[in-house]
Amino acid sequence: MDRLLPNIHSPKDLQGLSISDLNRLATEIREEIRAVVAQRSAHFASNLGVVELTLALHSVFDFSYDRLVWDVGHQTYPHKLVTGRYEQFSTIRTLGGLMGYPNPAESMYDLFMTGHAGCSISSALGLSCGDDLLRKLGEIEKENTENSQSERSPRHAVAVIGDGSFSSGVVFEGLNHLGELRKNLTVILNDNKMSICPRVGSFGRYLDTLRLNPFYTERKEDIKQLFQSIPVVGPRLRKRFHDLKMAFKACVSGGMLFEELGIRYIGPVDGHNIRQLQKFLKMARQYQCPVLLHVLTQKGHGFTPAEQDPTRYHAPSPQWVRGVSLSGKKTPENKTVTENETPKTSEIVVSPTVKPDRSYTVIASHKIMELMEKDPRVTVITAAMCQGNKLELIRQKFPDRFFDVGICESHAVVLASGMARAGLRPIVDIYSTFMQRAFDHIFQEVSLQDLPVTLLMDRAGIVGADGPTHHGTYDIAYLRPFPNLAVTAPCDTLDLEQLLELAVNQNHPFTIRYSKTQTPEITDVVRTPVSFGKCEILQDGDPAGGLILACGVQAATALEAVRQLGDKSVTVVNLRFLKPLDLTEILLRISRCAWVLTVEEGSRIGGVGSAIMEAVMDAWCHFGTDSEFLKSVQFTQNSVCDRSFPPVVRLGIEDRFIQHASRSEQLAETGLDVVGICSAIKKMSRYSS
Amino acid sequence: MDRLLPNIHSPKDLQGLSISDLNRLATEIREEIRAVVAQRSAHFASNLGVVELTLALHSVFDFSYDRLVWDVGHQTYPHKLVTGRYEQFSTIRTLGGLMGYPNPAESMYDLFMTGHAGCSISSALGLSCGDDLLRKLGEIEKENTENSQSERSPRHAVAVIGDGSFSSGVVFEGLNHLGELRKNLTVILNDNKMSICPRVGSFGRYLDTLRLNPFYTERKEDIKQLFQSIPVVGPRLRKRFHDLKMAFKACVSGGMLFEELGIRYIGPVDGHNIRQLQKFLKMARQYQCPVLLHVLTQKGHGFTPAEQDPTRYHAPSPQWVRGVSLSGKKTPENKTVTENETPKTSEIVVSPTVKPDRSYTVIASHKIMELMEKDPRVTVITAAMCQGNKLELIRQKFPDRFFDVGICESHAVVLASGMARAGLRPIVDIYSTFMQRAFDHIFQEVSLQDLPVTLLMDRAGIVGADGPTHHGTYDIAYLRPFPNLAVTAPCDTLDLEQLLELAVNQNHPFTIRYSKTQTPEITDVVRTPVSFGKCEILQDGDPAGGLILACGVQAATALEAVRQLGDKSVTVVNLRFLKPLDLTEILLRISRCAWVLTVEEGSRIGGVGSAIMEAVMDAWCHFGTDSEFLKSVQFTQNSVCDRSFPPVVRLGIEDRFIQHASRSEQLAETGLDVVGICSAIKKMSRYSS
Repeated sequence: MDRLLPNIHSPKDLQGLSISDLNRLATEIREEIRAVVAQRSAHFASNLGVVELTLALHSVFDFSYDRLVWDVGHQTYPHKLVTGRYEQFSTIRTLGGLMGYPNPAESMYDLFMTGHAGCSISSALGLSCGDDLLRKLGEIEKENTENSQSERSPRHAVAVIGDGSFSSGVVFEGLNHLGELRKNLTVILNDNKMSICPRVGSFGRYLDTLRLNPFYTERKEDIKQLFQSIPVVGPRLRKRFHDLKMAFKACVSGGMLFEELGIRYIGPVDGHNIRQLQKFLKMARQYQCPVLLHVLTQKGHGFTPAEQDPTRYHAPSPQWVRGVSLSGKKTPENKTVTENETPKTSEIVVSPTVKPDRSYTVIASHKIMELMEKDPRVTVITAAMCQGNKLELIRQKFPDRFFDVGICESHAVVLASGMARAGLRPIVDIYSTFMQRAFDHIFQEVSLQDLPVTLLMDRAGIVGADGPTHHGTYDIAYLRPFPNLAVTAPCDTLDLEQLLELAVNQNHPFTIRYSKTQTPEITDVVRTPVSFGKCEILQDGDPAGGLILACGVQAATALEAVRQLGDKSVTVVNLRFLKPLDLTEILLRISRCAWVLTVEEGSRIGGVGSAIMEAVMDAWCHFGTDSEFLKSVQFTQNSVCDRSFPPVVRLGIEDRFIQHASRSEQLAETGLDVVGICSAIKKMSRYSS
Repeated sequence: MDRLLPNIHSPKDLQGLSISDLNRLATEIREEIRAVVAQRSAHFASNLGVVELTLALHSVFDFSYDRLVWDVGHQTYPHKLVTGRYEQFSTIRTLGGLMGYPNPAESMYDLFMTGHAGCSISSALGLSCGDDLLRKLGEIEKENTENSQSERSPRHAVAVIGDGSFSSGVVFEGLNHLGELRKNLTVILNDNKMSICPRVGSFGRYLDTLRLNPFYTERKEDIKQLFQSIPVVGPRLRKRFHDLKMAFKACVSGGMLFEELGIRYIGPVDGHNIRQLQKFLKMARQYQCPVLLHVLTQKGHGFTPAEQDPTRYHAPSPQWVRGVSLSGKKTPENKTVTENETPKTSEIVVSPTVKPDRSYTVIASHKIMELMEKDPRVTVITAAMCQGNKLELIRQKFPDRFFDVGICESHAVVLASGMARAGLRPIVDIYSTFMQRAFDHIFQEVSLQDLPVTLLMDRAGIVGADGPTHHGTYDIAYLRPFPNLAVTAPCDTLDLEQLLELAVNQNHPFTIRYSKTQTPEITDVVRTPVSFGKCEILQDGDPAGGLILACGVQAATALEAVRQLGDKSVTVVNLRFLKPLDLTEILLRISRCAWVLTVEEGSRIGGVGSAIMEAVMDAWCHFGTDSEFLKSVQFTQNSVCDRSFPPVVRLGIEDRFIQHASRSEQLAETGLDVVGICSAIKKMSRYSS
C-alpha cells in the first residue's frame, strides 16, 4: 500500500481522508518520528502522544485562517509533518535544518517560536483580540467603500497545552482574562499525566478526579432520574430549588474549576480517537464562548517502550530507539536519514564507548547529595527538572527535603526564600533559560531580602539543538545588577564542588552557572582552592603580556588555546567569581598587561567583560568606595595619563539569536571554542609590545 | 477616656482586651492613620480596610512564633501600630523613618520586605516547609540528648492576600503546591472587590458569586431539608447517591475552585466583625490542612469619603484628608505629626498653587490617546495601573482597545505579542519595577519574535517614598541584552511624544522608559526631531573638552548643571536611544574629548554607561560588524596607541538598595541631581588639558 504522508503537502490534503486513512497516516507519522529519533536525540514521547490530536485539529480547522498555538512547542513534529515540511523532516534539530520547536520562518502554520511553558493561552487570546478588532475595522471600511466582499466567519483560536505546563502561573493569568473577555477560543488541555517529569501539585490531582468523574456522559440519566424523584417541596424551599439545581448541574458536569472561571468545560475525550476528537472540536468551534476541551492522551503512545517509560523517552538516546519497531520489537533499521543529513559533530552521534558522565549537571547532583548528607538544613527545589538535573537519587533518598514544584519557577524561588528565612539552606536547581521566569522573584525575594538561597543555573550559555528559546544567554547580565548576590561560574569539577560547599555555608544569596557539557580536565596546574571573591591563575605569564580573563568551561578552553599556541607570555585567569570580582588581582594585572581578552558563554552586552571594564574604569577614575585598595595598587591620578587603558576584547554571545545546531557548531560560530580563542589571541598580539 | 493605642507595645498587649476595647482600638488606629495621611501622601484605603483583621490576627495568633506574611505590604500600617512601632509611626515614608512596606529591619513581626504582588502564599509555604523540617530535626536532636524541653505546637503560617493580587500567576503556582503539600497554612483572602483599580478577570466575578452564595450559613437548613425530602430510590441510583451527595455538599458549601485544589474554603466572613474573625481564625488554626478564609472587607472602611471612592483614596493627596473626620465631616486638624517630622522637600508637601501636571505619565497618556485616534491598530494594555498611569480617559473613550488585565504583567506582555502578531500595535504601559515580572516574556514573546510591541516603563529609576521594592533600577541593564529591542529614554515632552509616535509606526519591539516626575523644560536649545537611533546635542562644546552623555530627565539636569557652572566647553548629549546607540556621533566625539560623564537613573552595572564603554572598546579593537563605519571615523589600529581611552565616569544608581525618602532626597543621595552632576563635572575637570 502506498504511503499517505508523502502526499500531504498541506493540511488541505487531509480533507478527503477517511478516519481509517487518518489512522494509517498516524502510524506513518509515528514511524517517521521514530526513524529520526533513532538517528539523533530529539523530543519523542510528547510527539507520539499528539499524533491523532494534530490530525483532528488540522482536519476540522483551517489554520491558514484560524489560529493554532502549541504551548512549549516540542510536541509539534506531527504538526510539522502535515504542514508541508515532510521533505525536510529528517534535518530536524541540525544546523540549517528544521527547528525542534515552532518557527514562523519555516511555515505560516507556526505563529510563534516557543519553548518556555504556559504562554499559549495568553498568545491565543492576544490573537483573538487582534483578529476581532481588525475584523470590526474591516467591516467599517467595507461599509464605507460599499465593497460587497463575501463574508467569512470569525477566526477561531486554539491553544494546545499540556497538563505539565498548566500549573505555570501565566496560564492562570490567561484563563482569568479569557473568562472575562469570553472570546471564541478553545483551550485544549492535553492531559497525559506528565510534564517532562511526572507532574506535581494539586491541579494534577484535580485532573485525575475529572478523569474518574462518575457523572460524566454515561451517568447523565442517573442524575435526571434523581431530580425527577424529588417531590414538590414547600414554598420557602422551592424558591431555592432552581439555584440548587443550577449549582448541582455545574457541579456534576465536571470541570468546576474552569467553569468557575467562566470557561466551558468539555471532556474528558479520548485523545487517540480521531473521530471523537473531530466531534468535540466541532462542538467547541460552535460555542460562542471560551471552551476548555480536556483531551486524554498517552505520552509515547504507539511506541511500546515509550508508553511504558515516557520520562526516559522524553528525548531518548538514539540507541534506545534505533532498530526498535513501534511495537517495541527489535528490527533491522531502515535508514531513512541520509548520510549527509546526519550531524557532523561528536556531540550528537553517540560514541560506541561511553565515558562516565562527568557533566556539570552530574557533578552538581553528587555534590548536593553529599551536602544534604552532611547538613540537614540543605533542601533542593526544582521545577519539573528532576530528570534533566539528575536529581532522581536525591528525591529518592531525601523525599522530605526535595521539592519538585512543577513548571513554576517563580514559586520555586519564593518558596526557597521562605525556607531560607526559616533557617534552611535551599538550593534552587533550574535551567538558566527557565530561571528567567523568576527574574522578579530573584530580585524581591532573594536579593532584596539578602537570604542564603543558592540558585543553580544549569545549561547556562549555549545549549545546542534546542536553539534560541533554550540558550542561557542572559543570566550574567541580569544577575550582576542585583545587590547582595554572588555570581559565580565554576570551570571544572573542583570549582563546582567547592563553590556549592561555599554557597550553602555562607549567609547571602549565591548563584552558580554552568554549561550543558562535560566538565573539562585541567592538567599540569597546581590548583588553588575556591575562596569567596577570589579568582585562580591557571597560567601565570609575563605581567606585560596578554591577560585572558575567562569563566566557566571557557577558562579551561582558554588554557588549552594558549598551550596549543605554546604562548607562555599570556596569563590565563579562571575568574570563578563574576561578582564580586577579584579586584585586587585583576586590577593589578590589568594595570600592567598589554591586552585583555575576556571569555564568557553569555551575552557580550552587560556580561563579565563589561564588568571588568566597569571595574577598571572606576578604579582609574577613583570612582567607587574601594579607595584604600585603589591606593594600594597605585592607581594614582596620574596613571590615567601615564598609560592607556589596555585594549579589551570581549568574547561572548553577540547581540542576536544563535540558531539550533550542535553545541560544538554553536561554540565555533560564536568563537568560544579553542579555535576561536586561538584566533582572538593571535589578533591581540598586535597590541603586545 | 484614655487612648488604648499608646499602651500597645506589642501584640501581647492585645490579649486582655475585650471586643469592645478592640473596636475602640480600631477607631484609634484609623484616626492615627488618617492623621499621618493628612500630612503626606501614603497608602490609605487599603490600611483602613484591614484594621479589624489585623487586630483579630494578632489576638488569635502569636506571630513572634507563628508566621504572618502580608502580600504586597502597603496594608501593614495597622500591623505596624500594634507591633511596637506606634511611637515612630508619624515618620512613616520619610527618610530615616518607618517604611511604608514591611521591613525586617524594623521588627521581628515583618518577615519579608515586600511590594510586588502575589508572593505571600509561596513565602508562607516556604516558611512552613522550613519550620516543619527544623522541628523534626529538633525532635531528633532532643531524643538524642534526652532533653525534656516542654513541647510547643507547630508554628502556624498565615498569608494575607487581597483579591486584586490574587490573579497574579504566582498565587496559582503557590496554591497548587500548597494543595499538594497540605501544610497547616491559612490563606486569608482579603476580598475588598478591588486591587488598586477595580479588579478585573473572571476570578473577580467568581468571588462575587461566593459573596452572593445563597447556600452559605443561613441556608444550610434548606439543604438538609431538601436531602431529607428525596425518597428512597432504586438500587442502581442508590449506589451513586453517596457520591452525588458529597459532590453536592462541596458544591453548595462554596469555594469549589479552592476545594478542587485541595484547599479547604471557609467563608465569606465579615472582615469588620472582630468576634467573627477571631472565631473563624481559631477554626482555621485547628484544621490540619490548608485553609482559605474568605474575608469580606471594605477598602477605606471607617472613613466615609474613602468608602465612597476607594480608588481615589488608595494613596490620596493630603488635602483630601486633612481636616476631615472619620465620618467625613470637616474639622479643625489636630496636628499629630510634629514639625521636624514633616518631609523636607517640595516633592511631598502639596504646594498651594498647583501647576498643571506635566509628568511623563500624563504626557504619555495624552499622546497615546492621540495615537489611538489616528491609528485604529493601537491598543493599550496595563496591569492594574489604569489610574497610576492616567489611562482612565482612554479606557472611557476606547473600551474595546483598552485592556486592564489586573496584576498579571506576564500575561500582559504575552497578550500584546499575540495582538501584534495579528496586526495590531499594542502599547504595554506598566511601572518599570512591575515589568520585571514579565522579563522572560519580553525575551520570548517580544524580542525573540521581533514583534512591534511597545513597552512603556513608567516610574523607571527612582520613585521616592515607596522605596526599594518600587524603584525601576534594572530596566536598562536587563533590556539591553535582548536582540531586536530598541531601548529609549525621552528627556522631555517632545522626546516622549515623538518616541511614542515612532514606536507604533515601526515594525520591531520598542521600549520607552521615563521617571516618576514632571518633564523638564529645555530652553534656549534648537531642538532636533527624534529620529531612530539618533541622539541629540543639547550643548555643542569644545570637541577636546568634556562630554556628557545623559539620558531621560537627567539630560536636562546635566544641561542645567553645565549652565550653572557657565561651562561652554562641555558638550551635553541627550542620548534618547540607549540601544541602538548613535555610534557615529558618540564614537567620533569620544575619540576627541578629554573626558566622558554618563548619567542615567538606573543601575550603574550594565547600564548605558557600560554600553558606551562596550561600544568604544569594540570600535578601538575593531571588534564588531560595523567596520565600514569605523574606518570612516578613523579608529585605525594606531588610535589605540595614539591616545588613551578617555576617562569615563558613570553616574547612576550604585550597587545597593536606595531606602525610602523623597525622590529629591534620593536623587541627591545618588548624585543624579544638579548638585551631583555639577560636582562630578568639577572632578572631571582634572582630566581636561
